[in-house]
Amino acid sequence: MTSIAMIEAAAARLAPVVRRTPLLTSDWLDEIAGRRVFVKAECLQHTGSFKFRGAWSCISALEPEVRARGVLAFSSGNHAQGVARAARLFGVPAVIIMPRDAPKLKIDNTRALGAEVVLYDRATESREEIGAALSAERNLTLVRPYDDAQVIAGQGTTGLEIAEQAAEAGVAAADVLVCCGGGGLTSGIAVALADRAPGLRVRPCEPEGFDDMTRSLAAGNRLANPSLTGSVCDAILTPIPGEITFPLLSRHCGPGIAVSDDQALAAVALAWSRLKLVLEPGGAVALAAALFHGEKLQGEAVIAVASGGNVDAAVFQRALAHAPN
Amino acid sequence: MTSIAMIEAAAARLAPVVRRTPLLTSDWLDEIAGRRVFVKAECLQHTGSFKFRGAWSCISALEPEVRARGVLAFSSGNHAQGVARAARLFGVPAVIIMPRDAPKLKIDNTRALGAEVVLYDRATESREEIGAALSAERNLTLVRPYDDAQVIAGQGTTGLEIAEQAAEAGVAAADVLVCCGGGGLTSGIAVALADRAPGLRVRPCEPEGFDDMTRSLAAGNRLANPSLTGSVCDAILTPIPGEITFPLLSRHCGPGIAVSDDQALAAVALAWSRLKLVLEPGGAVALAAALFHGEKLQGEAVIAVASGGNVDAAVFQRALAHAPN
Repeated sequence: MTSIAMIEAAAARLAPVVRRTPLLTSDWLDEIAGRRVFVKAECLQHTGSFKFRGAWSCISALEPEVRARGVLAFSSGNHAQGVARAARLFGVPAVIIMPRDAPKLKIDNTRALGAEVVLYDRATESREEIGAALSAERNLTLVRPYDDAQVIAGQGTTGLEIAEQAAEAGVAAADVLVCCGGGGLTSGIAVALADRAPGLRVRPCEPEGFDDMTRSLAAGNRLANPSLTGSVCDAILTPIPGEITFPLLSRHCGPGIAVSDDQALAAVALAWSRLKLVLEPGGAVALAAALFHGEKLQGEAVIAVASGGNVDAAVFQRALAHAPN
Repeated sequence: MTSIAMIEAAAARLAPVVRRTPLLTSDWLDEIAGRRVFVKAECLQHTGSFKFRGAWSCISALEPEVRARGVLAFSSGNHAQGVARAARLFGVPAVIIMPRDAPKLKIDNTRALGAEVVLYDRATESREEIGAALSAERNLTLVRPYDDAQVIAGQGTTGLEIAEQAAEAGVAAADVLVCCGGGGLTSGIAVALADRAPGLRVRPCEPEGFDDMTRSLAAGNRLANPSLTGSVCDAILTPIPGEITFPLLSRHCGPGIAVSDDQALAAVALAWSRLKLVLEPGGAVALAAALFHGEKLQGEAVIAVASGGNVDAAVFQRALAHAPN
């Protein structure tokens, strides 16, 4: 179980390679939200999302001889790039298993980061079987996207930074809104803030119709999403809360908030026009909750984690249609 | 004449209100450029460009009773927003004179920042006459966009940050590329670096066909642009190098670099995809020079100042057509 000590240790391992991302503000966003809005710009992290933190934390915690054999991940998105870059910095092999129909740009980007990409057919093949066979053959270590104590510890380093930056900004009490898929980032930040800034309460934010964490927290046990497709917020569509992340969220987090795709796209447009940040829709759901669900929030300030910015041009152009003019 | 002491004093006045913008990197950009590329993300500054620094420096240097009567500026763009926000923070009136055919969004944004916008007809009225009449009537102080020692000192605070951040990154020698219109930002950074980091050489970057500073530096005297329209880099189209800025550039800067509109748009697209930053074309010419004019640069590293991100959706969509896919 991830503890504050594990997060501190992860922060020490990350220090030479991570980017301390800024906490940004905008008069315009304050006016829309009716309170002070702080945006943790984790889209400016290496590889364009927070995932590099968890990947580095996990890989750096391996025994050197284990690490040297290489790592394996299943991902077509941000986790793939985070793992690939962390492995490359360590000079160890990374094998990323991606569906054959993943966007060409994501496949190219992952290969360009030095990873070996193994493609599989979603309809006829099992990525777990392919991964298990490769692991056995090459002794690769699986880096899970969220349900791993060291991955959660790495994401939690974002929370250490938020605690420091909120204190610098004079914010002692606020809701901290986090884009939530499997819950790795949300649980890591929650563990960090429970220790460092107990006045900051973490709340998971999800797309409407894919709010498994929100419903699970309300029910007190893990509930699955009925579907895994159909939202523009693809980066955070996961089947069910993690076995490790859910108990951490249950202990530390306030109720979840669900936002519509249109609200996520409007938040992408506002981040573009008012913060000069590029967000993907799944990385903008927390900002959307801050701006458009104020009635569910408490306090005079809100902190929204902008978790990623890996978006393709077609989706971004859709978002720009929501821009002020 | 702006000195390092004036820049230090401006930095002290700016400290409570300015954002220290990050110096960002990307493996992808390094690969394109064939050297390490550092991007000073001044688009993340308040109001979306460096202009807030100079405006605050100038207004904060006024005698309180002079400042209280209010300030005046001619601008339809970044300078207008910088002056408006600085005046509002001081609680003093700001009058911004803008052409009647300026984009509605820019007029609205400037008004929303609390300024009084006075519109004039470019064809039949003189903004100088309107400004002189208003100044006389209300005793307003004109805040010039670049040819003012305190404005230059404010922009120069960007250079103090670059010196510190380059040292932290282990870069002692590099070309520092700066998007150049009238030369306020370029000259300010050059004065700061000449004192703090003499291994960092400033070079002005301009749009092709509007490279008055580049030609003036080569000729040794101030030469005008033949035209003031016809580039997508509208933020940095100015008639002729400043009377105050030009001698500073002559003393401190290396030769200028001109980039095409297509190169500026491609740099906007790469900042979007690889840095998750929103740049306007005029704010991307330095990055374009870093990426596409490497043969004119010296050293294993280059620092490009991304000076602004106030771009409308139509131009941004044009830039996205240059994105990798």
